[in-house]
Amino acid sequence: MQALWLERQQLRPREDLPVPVPESGEALVRVRLAGVCATDLELTRGYYPFTGVPGHEFVGQIAAAPDAPERLGERVVGEINVGCGLCDACLAGRRNHCERREVLGIRGRNGAFAEYLTLPLANLHPVPAQIPDELAVFCEPLAAALRIQEQRPIVPDERVLLVGAGRLGQLIALTIAPLDCALAVVARHRRQRDLLEAAGIAWIDVVDIHEGGYDLVIEASGRPRGFDLARHGVRPGGTIVLKSTYADRTQVDLSRLVVDEVALLGSRCGAFAPALDLLQSGLIDPRPLIDGSYPLSRAIDAFETAARPGTLKVLVESN
Amino acid sequence: MQALWLERQQLRPREDLPVPVPESGEALVRVRLAGVCATDLELTRGYYPFTGVPGHEFVGQIAAAPDAPERLGERVVGEINVGCGLCDACLAGRRNHCERREVLGIRGRNGAFAEYLTLPLANLHPVPAQIPDELAVFCEPLAAALRIQEQRPIVPDERVLLVGAGRLGQLIALTIAPLDCALAVVARHRRQRDLLEAAGIAWIDVVDIHEGGYDLVIEASGRPRGFDLARHGVRPGGTIVLKSTYADRTQVDLSRLVVDEVALLGSRCGAFAPALDLLQSGLIDPRPLIDGSYPLSRAIDAFETAARPGTLKVLVESN
Repeated sequence: MQALWLERQQLRPREDLPVPVPESGEALVRVRLAGVCATDLELTRGYYPFTGVPGHEFVGQIAAAPDAPERLGERVVGEINVGCGLCDACLAGRRNHCERREVLGIRGRNGAFAEYLTLPLANLHPVPAQIPDELAVFCEPLAAALRIQEQRPIVPDERVLLVGAGRLGQLIALTIAPLDCALAVVARHRRQRDLLEAAGIAWIDVVDIHEGGYDLVIEASGRPRGFDLARHGVRPGGTIVLKSTYADRTQVDLSRLVVDEVALLGSRCGAFAPALDLLQSGLIDPRPLIDGSYPLSRAIDAFETAARPGTLKVLVESN
Repeated sequence: MQALWLERQQLRPREDLPVPVPESGEALVRVRLAGVCATDLELTRGYYPFTGVPGHEFVGQIAAAPDAPERLGERVVGEINVGCGLCDACLAGRRNHCERREVLGIRGRNGAFAEYLTLPLANLHPVPAQIPDELAVFCEPLAAALRIQEQRPIVPDERVLLVGAGRLGQLIALTIAPLDCALAVVARHRRQRDLLEAAGIAWIDVVDIHEGGYDLVIEASGRPRGFDLARHGVRPGGTIVLKSTYADRTQVDLSRLVVDEVALLGSRCGAFAPALDLLQSGLIDPRPLIDGSYPLSRAIDAFETAARPGTLKVLVESN
């Protein structure tokens, strides 16, 4: 089958990969549409030494399911973590934190920039007919955005600062704006600002961050510098939720965290059900974030477009 | 009056300081006994540019209280943060995080290594007669130890790792050991280990930290290296409570915090009432931590003794 291949941080198209064979409890999924995420770009910069097919945001159709033939043909989105099912973390219900986990397109399991992928049936959620592919492909990053509220519910009237208005930042903004809180989003690019304005969300410039003025700061800039801005904005006793992953380490004044009793919360993947519910509700529509769409044969061009500053979501069509 | 004076990181005894005059709502306190804390030592290393009388752990007696003459003669311990009472943080009940706060012996207000100090009456808690001075002087650091449980209640059967068994670490160990959890304390020095053993608390060597084996890790080592040990020990999805303050910055892999969804909680001062209750209950007795006691005229010697590796609590007698 056709696929995009990552090896030693280099991408290349391949046509010689065999169609994967689902293991017990798994399904074969024909990919329809996949999204390029910041993590995909970071993989090409050495964030994690992955060799294989990248891509973890997708919508597809079950093409084979030996253990659940009734699900054949189902249109699905898929949770990306595959735990071993046997370790303490898995048995405690924390499969996303299984140390031996595979992660679709990131660690130990080929991903979505391909004609087919496999995932456990339990990872695959049926997509209601009202949600078109172009919306469903946002399910995974939207779940990651909603994860923030799972970990740190937003209290009425809180002052919330979101640092970063890129791919993930825009989705986070869309999930928080409807809540009863005062949201300010730090946006650098014209297009980011226009999108926020179109959604009725207030943006601010970096220089307008109110020092110590926010109860909750969400750092989704994707850059180490974003952490300094978050520290600048959070009030003593406040919380910083960290969403960015990148290859660098950051100098942190841990003593100031102690004196100011600031909480840092790392935040990664979220549950798919609330994300699907939100997409089905029609309350948010991330489709204006789509900056382009490329066929699988031109997936490298999709990465190049996605890597340009200010670009938001770029899609790859596999069907 | 006699006092110890800190200026440009240098300590010197003074005899020429005037007895402070309590402002409205304040009391004059005759210091009886004061404790040397790691923060005091850090002040002499440039942790914070304080000029004045250091010392914030004390027990004393109210010597003048123009606004509350009925409290004259009361034996007291004192909360160390003095908020402005007017800002958003103070009005929201977060006086400990007032940006304009004074902190006894640390910021803007002369402290306890002196014959007298002043504090607002609201900061001063009466000490029950059953609690002798040598116990009462531990109230402030004990409140700081109990602050951990205020911020992050310990759940039954949790695996808890405490990194550091020095002054504060020993107190934290004493407060956690009676709870229904599995506590391991990383202790380096023979004396630290002996004290833990005498209190029936399990200690381990650094090399015995179980990687990813702890739900909650408390970092109270007072050294940047302690954070690396905490990261090594905490399980994905777990929590690190930070208690150490020092002058250095630390290299942190924030992306790993994101992927592992680790929470970092800065933790500083706690409420005095629970600490006094615990001291009165007789359930814990920190007096074995006392390594020496010096008269106020020899407070510099007290600092020198306290700075020796492995030394725990050193007291200064002002009466």
